[in-house]
Amino acid sequence: MNFRLIIRVLGSILLVEAGGLVLPLLVSLYYGEDTWLCFTLVAALCAVLGFALVMTPTGSRDLMQGRDGYMAVALAWLGLSAFGALPYVISGAIPHYLDALFETISGFTTTGATILTEIERLPRGILFWRAETQWMGGMGVLVMFLALMPKLGGGSVHLMRAESPGPIKSKLVPKLGDTAKILYAIYVSLTAAEAVALRLAGMGWYEAVTHAFTTMATGGFSVKGSSIAAYSSPAIVWIIIVFTFLAGVNFSLLYAALRGQWRQVWRSQELQLYTAIILGAIALVCLDLSVQTGERAADSFTDAAFQVVTIMTTTGYATRDFALWPTFSRSVLVALMFIGACAGSTAGGVKVSRVLIHIKNLRRDLGRIIHPKHISVISMDDETVDEGVVSACHSFLVAYVLVLIAGALVVSWDNLGFEESLTASMTCIGNVGPAMGALGPTGNFSILSYTSKVALSLEMLMGRLELMPLLVLLNPATWRDR
Amino acid sequence: MNFRLIIRVLGSILLVEAGGLVLPLLVSLYYGEDTWLCFTLVAALCAVLGFALVMTPTGSRDLMQGRDGYMAVALAWLGLSAFGALPYVISGAIPHYLDALFETISGFTTTGATILTEIERLPRGILFWRAETQWMGGMGVLVMFLALMPKLGGGSVHLMRAESPGPIKSKLVPKLGDTAKILYAIYVSLTAAEAVALRLAGMGWYEAVTHAFTTMATGGFSVKGSSIAAYSSPAIVWIIIVFTFLAGVNFSLLYAALRGQWRQVWRSQELQLYTAIILGAIALVCLDLSVQTGERAADSFTDAAFQVVTIMTTTGYATRDFALWPTFSRSVLVALMFIGACAGSTAGGVKVSRVLIHIKNLRRDLGRIIHPKHISVISMDDETVDEGVVSACHSFLVAYVLVLIAGALVVSWDNLGFEESLTASMTCIGNVGPAMGALGPTGNFSILSYTSKVALSLEMLMGRLELMPLLVLLNPATWRDR
Repeated sequence: MNFRLIIRVLGSILLVEAGGLVLPLLVSLYYGEDTWLCFTLVAALCAVLGFALVMTPTGSRDLMQGRDGYMAVALAWLGLSAFGALPYVISGAIPHYLDALFETISGFTTTGATILTEIERLPRGILFWRAETQWMGGMGVLVMFLALMPKLGGGSVHLMRAESPGPIKSKLVPKLGDTAKILYAIYVSLTAAEAVALRLAGMGWYEAVTHAFTTMATGGFSVKGSSIAAYSSPAIVWIIIVFTFLAGVNFSLLYAALRGQWRQVWRSQELQLYTAIILGAIALVCLDLSVQTGERAADSFTDAAFQVVTIMTTTGYATRDFALWPTFSRSVLVALMFIGACAGSTAGGVKVSRVLIHIKNLRRDLGRIIHPKHISVISMDDETVDEGVVSACHSFLVAYVLVLIAGALVVSWDNLGFEESLTASMTCIGNVGPAMGALGPTGNFSILSYTSKVALSLEMLMGRLELMPLLVLLNPATWRDR
Repeated sequence: MNFRLIIRVLGSILLVEAGGLVLPLLVSLYYGEDTWLCFTLVAALCAVLGFALVMTPTGSRDLMQGRDGYMAVALAWLGLSAFGALPYVISGAIPHYLDALFETISGFTTTGATILTEIERLPRGILFWRAETQWMGGMGVLVMFLALMPKLGGGSVHLMRAESPGPIKSKLVPKLGDTAKILYAIYVSLTAAEAVALRLAGMGWYEAVTHAFTTMATGGFSVKGSSIAAYSSPAIVWIIIVFTFLAGVNFSLLYAALRGQWRQVWRSQELQLYTAIILGAIALVCLDLSVQTGERAADSFTDAAFQVVTIMTTTGYATRDFALWPTFSRSVLVALMFIGACAGSTAGGVKVSRVLIHIKNLRRDLGRIIHPKHISVISMDDETVDEGVVSACHSFLVAYVLVLIAGALVVSWDNLGFEESLTASMTCIGNVGPAMGALGPTGNFSILSYTSKVALSLEMLMGRLELMPLLVLLNPATWRDR
C-alpha cells in the first residue's frame, strides 16, 4: 500500500475543508454571530494539519493503485467528518461529539437525517455550514479537489472511481481533471440557477442559497424545522421539484443536453426508467390517498409529486408528514428509498442503472432456460455491459442488503417499532434522510441510542461511497497483503 | 415446447393427488365424519381426469427439455392446488374457493399461513388433509411420483431439478429414480420416528401423525388453534425442535450420516453456518428478552430455541406469541425468515447455501480490488462452484427481492401496518407461515382482501418452486419461441 500518497490525499482534503469553512465564517461575520470564532479555529486547524500532511515527502514515484484509491477515499471521508463536526461542538450547537459527528456525516453523505430538535434556534453560520457540507459531499470532495488541482499525480483516476456513484464509471472527456471541472461547472451553475429562482419566488438570499445547496446535493437539510412545509408558495415547491429531479439525473446526460445531444438523453434507458418510476409512483400515491382519505387527486398531486421526487432522489425534504400517510403510500416511498436515483448523479440508493442491470441479468438467466446453449451479453444504451460490472452489481446488492439488515438489527435494539428500525437503516444507507414513524419528517434521530447513531453514521458513509471503500478499509486482507 | 409430455405429467400428478386423498377419506370414515363423501368425490374426479390426461398419446419420442420441466412443474403445482382446494369447499369447511385455494397452496408449499379462525371446530378428516398437503409438498410431489414410477421417460431429471430447492442440484446416486426413493425413504422414516416419539411423549396418534407430517415438511399447520402452545410438555416441545432442525438440513447430508460418512457431514459449510446462525439467534433473543422484559435466560431458553428453529426452518409453529416480543427479537426472526434453512431440505427462504455463495462472491470482488489480476474461483466444501451457479444465485436474489417488494406493496393496499405488509410477503415467499402484528401466530390471514390472498398464494408457489418455474410460465418469451 502506498501510505504516503494516501496521507497526501488526506492532507489535501483537509485543505479543501479549511477552504469550505471560510464561507460559514463569512456568513457568521455578516450576521454578527460570534460563531465566526469557531469556524476560524477549525479552519486554521484543518489548514495547518492539512499543510503538514501534504508536505510529507512521497519518496517513491509510485502510482496510486486501485486499493490505495479506495483506502484514501474512505480515510478522507472519515477525516473530513471528524473535523467537520468540530464547529457544532465548539459553538455549543450540538454538545455531544457523537451527535455532531452524526449530523456532519449526514451532511457530507447528503443523507439529511438530523438529531436536531429545534433547528431555527441555531445560529445562521452553523446552519449554513450544515447545508454546505451537503453541497460539498454531493458531487464529491475528492472530485472537487481534482477539479481544483488536477496534478495530484498518476492514478488519481482511482480516487474519482472510488468516490463517484454508479456501476459504470466513464470519463466525460479524456482528461480526468477536465471531467471533474465539467461536473463541478454543471453543479455550480444549477445551484446558482436554483438559488436565483428561489429568490425570485420569494425566499431571502440566505434561505435560497442554503436550499439550493441541499437540493442539488440531494441532501435535504433545511434551515426550517418544518422543511419545505414552511413555504406555502407553489412556485417554491415546484422549483424544488424540478431541480431535485435534475439532481437525480446522471450528470453526463446533463452534459450531453448542454451540448445539444438530445438523442443521447432521450435514449438513456436509465433516465427512461427513472422517469417512469417517478410518474408511476406519483399516480399510485394519489390513487391511494384518494381511496384511503378521500383526498382528491387534484389536491394531493403537488404533495405526492414533491414527496415522490424528494424520496426517489434521496433528498428527503418534506411538504407533508408522509409518515402519517396510509400504508401503501408509505411502502411505495420505502421502495423508492431502496432504489434511489440515477448513477452519476448526487443521489444515493442502489441506483436505477444497477436495478436495470439486475433485471437484464435475470431476464438473461430466464432466456437460458428456453435456449440453454444461447450465449448472450447484457447491453445498456446499445453498449455491452462487461461481465465484471454485472458481478460487481451482484456483490453490491449483497453487501447493501447485508449492511441494511445489520443496521436495522442494531437500531431495533432501541426497541422502537419494526418500521422505525428498518426504515432508519434504509434511509441512512440510501442517504435519504427521514425514516418513518417516530423517525419521520417531523420526528428526528435524537431519540436513538449512541450505538444506533454510530451504526447509522457508518451506514451513511457506506451508502455514499457505495460500500467498497469502507469494506476495503475494514477488510483484514487489505492490511495483511502490503 | 413438448405440450403432450407436460400434459402427461399433469395427469400423473392428479393420480398422485387422488391417491393422497384416500388417507383423509379413511380418517373421515374412522371418525365417522360425513366428509368422507367429499374426499371420495374429489379423489374420483382427480383419478378420472388424471387417467384421461395420462392416456394422451405422446406421439413424438422427444425427450423433455429444461423449459418443459419448469413448465410442467409450474402447471402441476397449480393443478394440484386447484383440485386440492375442493374438499374444503365441498365440505363447507371453507366456503369461499379463493380462501380454500389459499389454504391449499399454503399447505402444498409448506408455508402454513392460514385463513382459518377456529381450527378445532373443523372435522378431523379435513385437518388431516390440511396436514397431509404439507407432507406431500415438503419433499416434492413430482419427486414422489418419480420415486413411485421412475419410468416417465427421458429428461425427467428436469422435473426433479425444477422442483428441488437449492442452487446446486446433485443426485445422491446415479439413477434418478433411486435418488427419489432414497429421499422419500429418509423422509418417511423420520416422519414415522417423530410420530412415535410424539405418541410416547403423550400425544394421541392423530395429533402425533399430523404434527409429524407438518414438522418434517417444515410446514407448520397444527390441528390445534394455539399451535404447539397447546402442549405444556417440554418433551413434546423438544422433540419438535430436534425434528424441525433435522428437516431443515440438506437431505443428502442426512443420507451421508446414515451411511456413516460423518466427515462429510461435519465439513459441510452450509450445515456449519446453519447451526451457527441458529445458536447465535437463540442467544440474541434470550439476551433481548432478558434486557427488555427482565425474563431470565433460563426461563426463555426453550421458547427462544423453539421459535428460532421453527422460523429459520420456515416451519412456523409457535409456543409463544412472538409478534409481542420486543423489536430486536422480532427483527431477528424476520431476518431468519429471509435466510431460511439449507438447500435440499424441505425448508423455504433464500437458503443458507445461497447466502454462502453470495458472501463468497462478495469476498472475491473485494479481493479483486487488492489483487486486480488475480483470477479466483468460488469453492464450497472443497468443490468449485460453477460461475453459472453464481449467476443463477444473483438472478434468484434479484427475483426474490422484486417479488417480495411487489407482494408487500399489494398487501399494503389493505392498509394494515407496514410491518404486517412486509412480513406477510416475506413469510409467504419464504414458506414460513405466520407473519408479524395482526398476522402473527395468534392472528390469521382471513382479514386480508382477496387481492392480497391471491398475490400471497402466488408468492407461496413462487417461493416453494424457487421462482424460476413460475417466471418461465409467466414469461411471454416462453410462449413465443416454441
